[in-house]
Amino acid sequence: MNDLAALKADLEGLAIEDNPQIVRQKSRDFFWYSPVLKRQLDEVCADIVVTVTSEAEVIRVLRACYAHDVPVTTRGAGTGNYGQAMPLSGGVVLNLADMNKVLEVSTGVVRAEAGAIMSTIDDAARPSGQELRLHPSTYRTATIGGFVAGGSGGVGSINWGGLRDFGNILRLRVVTMEAEPRILELSGADLHKVSHAYGTNGVITEVTMPLTAAYDWVDVLTGFDSFAEAARFADALANQDGLLLKEIAPIAAPVPHDYFLRHQKFIRRDQSVCALMVAPFAMDAFSAFASRFGGVEILYRSDLASDEDKQGLPPVYELAWNHTTLRGLRVDPTLTYLQVLYPFPDHVEKAVHLAELLGDEAPAHLEFVRFDGRNTCFGLPIIRYSSEDRLEEIIRIHEDRGCPVFNPHCYTLEEGGMKQTDAVQLAFKKEADPKGLLNPGKMIAWENPDFDFSSDQTYLFPGLAR
Amino acid sequence: MNDLAALKADLEGLAIEDNPQIVRQKSRDFFWYSPVLKRQLDEVCADIVVTVTSEAEVIRVLRACYAHDVPVTTRGAGTGNYGQAMPLSGGVVLNLADMNKVLEVSTGVVRAEAGAIMSTIDDAARPSGQELRLHPSTYRTATIGGFVAGGSGGVGSINWGGLRDFGNILRLRVVTMEAEPRILELSGADLHKVSHAYGTNGVITEVTMPLTAAYDWVDVLTGFDSFAEAARFADALANQDGLLLKEIAPIAAPVPHDYFLRHQKFIRRDQSVCALMVAPFAMDAFSAFASRFGGVEILYRSDLASDEDKQGLPPVYELAWNHTTLRGLRVDPTLTYLQVLYPFPDHVEKAVHLAELLGDEAPAHLEFVRFDGRNTCFGLPIIRYSSEDRLEEIIRIHEDRGCPVFNPHCYTLEEGGMKQTDAVQLAFKKEADPKGLLNPGKMIAWENPDFDFSSDQTYLFPGLAR
Ligand SMILES: Cc1cc2nc3c(=O)[nH]c(=O)nc-3n(C[C@H](O)[C@H](O)[C@H](O)COP(=O)(O)OP(=O)(O)OC[C@H]3O[C@@H](n4cnc5c(N)ncnc54)[C@H](O)[C@@H]3O)c2cc1C
Ligand SMILES: Cc1cc2nc3c(=O)[nH]c(=O)nc-3n(C[C@H](O)[C@H](O)[C@H](O)COP(=O)(O)OP(=O)(O)OC[C@H]3O[C@@H](n4cnc5c(N)ncnc54)[C@H](O)[C@@H]3O)c2cc1C
Repeated sequence: MNDLAALKADLEGLAIEDNPQIVRQKSRDFFWYSPVLKRQLDEVCADIVVTVTSEAEVIRVLRACYAHDVPVTTRGAGTGNYGQAMPLSGGVVLNLADMNKVLEVSTGVVRAEAGAIMSTIDDAARPSGQELRLHPSTYRTATIGGFVAGGSGGVGSINWGGLRDFGNILRLRVVTMEAEPRILELSGADLHKVSHAYGTNGVITEVTMPLTAAYDWVDVLTGFDSFAEAARFADALANQDGLLLKEIAPIAAPVPHDYFLRHQKFIRRDQSVCALMVAPFAMDAFSAFASRFGGVEILYRSDLASDEDKQGLPPVYELAWNHTTLRGLRVDPTLTYLQVLYPFPDHVEKAVHLAELLGDEAPAHLEFVRFDGRNTCFGLPIIRYSSEDRLEEIIRIHEDRGCPVFNPHCYTLEEGGMKQTDAVQLAFKKEADPKGLLNPGKMIAWENPDFDFSSDQTYLFPGLAR
Repeated sequence: MNDLAALKADLEGLAIEDNPQIVRQKSRDFFWYSPVLKRQLDEVCADIVVTVTSEAEVIRVLRACYAHDVPVTTRGAGTGNYGQAMPLSGGVVLNLADMNKVLEVSTGVVRAEAGAIMSTIDDAARPSGQELRLHPSTYRTATIGGFVAGGSGGVGSINWGGLRDFGNILRLRVVTMEAEPRILELSGADLHKVSHAYGTNGVITEVTMPLTAAYDWVDVLTGFDSFAEAARFADALANQDGLLLKEIAPIAAPVPHDYFLRHQKFIRRDQSVCALMVAPFAMDAFSAFASRFGGVEILYRSDLASDEDKQGLPPVYELAWNHTTLRGLRVDPTLTYLQVLYPFPDHVEKAVHLAELLGDEAPAHLEFVRFDGRNTCFGLPIIRYSSEDRLEEIIRIHEDRGCPVFNPHCYTLEEGGMKQTDAVQLAFKKEADPKGLLNPGKMIAWENPDFDFSSDQTYLFPGLAR
């Protein structure tokens, strides 16, 4: 590891960590959500972690790593659950968690360093009556740079769609991995070059995001006799144009009762639930709509709950998105999950059909979102895992019924996404990371241009076999 | 007119106007948009106008009019274009224009007296970074009470749907027409009792509306070689979930050039136009989207226009909704218009087909809105009017192709709307206006319970023949 010694010398004065336990910890994310990734990635580890506090330090690290041919994997908070932030070829984990200042809040816009935690950004925006449009359920731990580079959407997507949509990211400042790193400012169509690229073609140092009006969202849990009713209610609610909600998630029994331990007292075991965030001034209209819909039991409303009832309850968004699975995993570590799109317009029928078909092997969990201008839903069904083969079979059952799966049991961009080469991101990698040192192994199009995405094979990064 | 003398005596101390010219002026609205209504309603006139400044005065007027059996027609700013505010049986015009205070602005909510002008409400809300969700293009003249009682939607409906949707009106304070008028506070499902009831079953004295984030909207005009392209662009834009716009209106050539006189210098005569309001921070993303779409010429952007260019230009929203027709009428007083719904999902095909079918007899004008959770469009085509028969024929041509017409050539609630009895509003009228003195002649269900809506007959109020 001679290069490493030279690299360390070059980086003198920076915060370098080489304690093996800490390095191992900072080399891991939530990959263990997947039994497949757990098997594949458990030994992955960086050589050192460098924690930077400024863009100038980022440039210094990249310049030195380029000179010494050392791979660099950028890390925000490491909450990704696809193994996105795991350094498959070792080298440096570039930790941005301390580059976390909110730089500027103006009307409709916030500018922050990439390592800023999303809830911190909202704390800074809220005095102006504003908040971020979208956040993952890891709002209180994840960084804005990690969300842009590795996330897709979440709470708020029912109003704004996802990060992939024009207008949900305004501007990115990016440092390239070259002999002399350049600073680029991307906006408009250029944002796609680095957003959701897992840091494979640049390090984002600064993020400019749109803001929207902030409210003291009311957490609401509604109960239903069947999952189908919960799903239909969610769909009808999503289509209420004048009712402002930030989150609509139907979750099939017995998941809410069995895994939402703090909320268990409000939920019967046979009850399917819709988890909601409603604007406070919309509560009257929401109640009127729910009683007209019929069959809706209000189990919990944070605006009417006693302090005693609220004691120790997590916010509703921490029951939703990947937190549903997390709460399941805490009770039953053998569980895993899928990520599915149920395409409009028969998304509800498809989701209900699959839920009935798979029964308790795959309790349904939907997330309603705006998608290409329509209200439809993603699904994150919990899977009672038996084997990799059966998991593949369940994926096929979904795809055969016209419901694409964004496979969360793969660590590559392509396999977890559109299953095709992203020409824009590949071209930008050629320009911004000519040596291929940024987060190696995550972009198949770079590692193996001839890979056949139509085959049933999953890609295996050679670097993993070291 | 003995009763009137007694009534006047009862109202002593209030602002009573009986100057015939002023009374005639305050008895009229924009009914003359329709050649049919112009013929039917031109002689309509109240006996006196009473201008009130408080709810207590409203109660005094209603109590006295009830005692003397004098009809009362409430008036906001009189900008309705269905003859809604015209006193078909004479009597009192109750003018609320001076009851116009904005009472309270809080997070997400504004409370105002019913006669407050919408732009005044926004002036009061804007220091808190907020504005109304929806406004008609008569924003700078119309009252909030008149909008709730007589309007349907407008600018902002692309994000929030219409007034009929749960959540777009929060609370109404209403005075009944009884021996002893009662004050009612309506919310939730009860709002429907009086919203869009033309003041036939109560006088709204106070309105509570939701607010949303306020921006310095950028006025944009984009040019296209054909109306079909303008309509397709508008539809694609409406489906961009991350692009925040407040207004999307494609308008067929030669209307923009011929009738938008102040903007004429930016527009070729053969150019169809999309009139847009875009959030300032969304302009980069909007431009990226427009150039990816292709064939879009940016004719005008208020954020880049010189002061000289902007001089004397009306805001884009005063080119849209019923202002498109108004600008046409100013150039060619023989024009009129229709109001059409093109139902999702083939709204664009339907609108383009009808535009091509009717050619220059009915230049197309669409307004994109959210409707039952989908993005679709209303149309307000300009009609080069020849006869009432041909107008009926054009309406039939639309309806035969699955495009319902909200006939703006009728003054009754039912004929301009759903063409059926609204049982809720009728029941509330029985309760709140037992003598039927409020805005007589506008609710067929009250005047003639046996009226056959499926017949081809239009309803003629007997009171008109006085
Ligand atoms: C319980 C749970 C719930 C979740 N819910 C959601 C959800 O609702 N929606 C959603 O989209 N995701 C969700 N995720 C995934 C993840 O939490 C989010 O995407 C989160 O925003 C990632 O942020 P992070 O700071 O943890 O990024 P990390 O995990 O540190 O990094 C994510 C990826 O981005 C790269 N990266 C990080 N920072 C930068 C940078 N500055 N420049 C370039 N590349 C960078 C990393 O290399 C990695 O590839 C969830 C995960 C868990 C475990
Ligand atoms: C150029 C132009 C553009 C327009 N654009 C739009 C548009 O975009 N969207 C739209 O919806 N409409 C539109 N309209 C119609 C109209 O301007 C609006 O509906 C407006 O909000 C009406 O407000 P007003 O104060 O003028 O009401 P008025 O015309 O005074 O009254 C409207 C109706 O409500 C009743 N009313 C008024 N105040 C009260 C009250 N306090 N209590 C009970 N009943 C009451 C009246 O009796 C009448 O029946 C347009 C009209 C014109 C002429």
